[in-house]
Amino acid sequence: MPKPPLPPEVDALLRKANPAVIATLRRDGSPHTAATWYDWDGERLLVNMDATRLRLKNMRRDPRVSVTVMLGSDWYRQVTIFGRATEIRDDPEFKDIDRLCLRYTRRQFHNRLRARISALIEPQAWYGWEGSTHWP
Amino acid sequence: MPKPPLPPEVDALLRKANPAVIATLRRDGSPHTAATWYDWDGERLLVNMDATRLRLKNMRRDPRVSVTVMLGSDWYRQVTIFGRATEIRDDPEFKDIDRLCLRYTRRQFHNRLRARISALIEPQAWYGWEGSTHWP
Repeated sequence: MPKPPLPPEVDALLRKANPAVIATLRRDGSPHTAATWYDWDGERLLVNMDATRLRLKNMRRDPRVSVTVMLGSDWYRQVTIFGRATEIRDDPEFKDIDRLCLRYTRRQFHNRLRARISALIEPQAWYGWEGSTHWP
Repeated sequence: MPKPPLPPEVDALLRKANPAVIATLRRDGSPHTAATWYDWDGERLLVNMDATRLRLKNMRRDPRVSVTVMLGSDWYRQVTIFGRATEIRDDPEFKDIDRLCLRYTRRQFHNRLRARISALIEPQAWYGWEGSTHWP
């Protein structure tokens, strides 16, 4: 499986606000998936969760994650990133969740009462797929 | 987390050809995700793969999977099924892949040379989410 750095086409797909699903590992080792917003700065994926989310507990216990990003208008093109949540940090000023919410909805995040936590995911390997062949 | 049977709203969402991502477990226990077609008959999820796919090897080794289905037009509504691949079977007549391909594209599957394998996934628990609250 290819290692980073990601080719320009993959980098460009990740920089757009596409639908994504993140898998983490539950205590018993079984997989847990959830749709997620993400952002990509060229080095790490940013995700952000309510502080009570199960996937946050999962990532604190075992940082290994897999994230599949689908092209919004044609989800037969996909990129999957295998990586590790190398940093988990509080988001007390809602900067990270606002960054994600603006990216996906062009609005600030509405719920400013509940604590938010960010995770930064460092890619270790990836694959791309389109139709029935590797992409790009 | 709720157990099956699934409520009618969830059953109805699954019966539509929505985008989905399946997570399986790699040999080292880390998660692997991939976008997937699926079908739902009210009891089990059907997925189908080229016989060489990594996620097939993964499911044969450890049948635990998690599948997140997003509402096509509004992927902020999601349903995630935690389950087990209780049956893995050859698809020599391409019946299962045609069923999936017709459902998603209204055409027969084009590549009838490479072996296809089906997995039937039995839900054990699930959750639904819309915006920032449980759904339905």
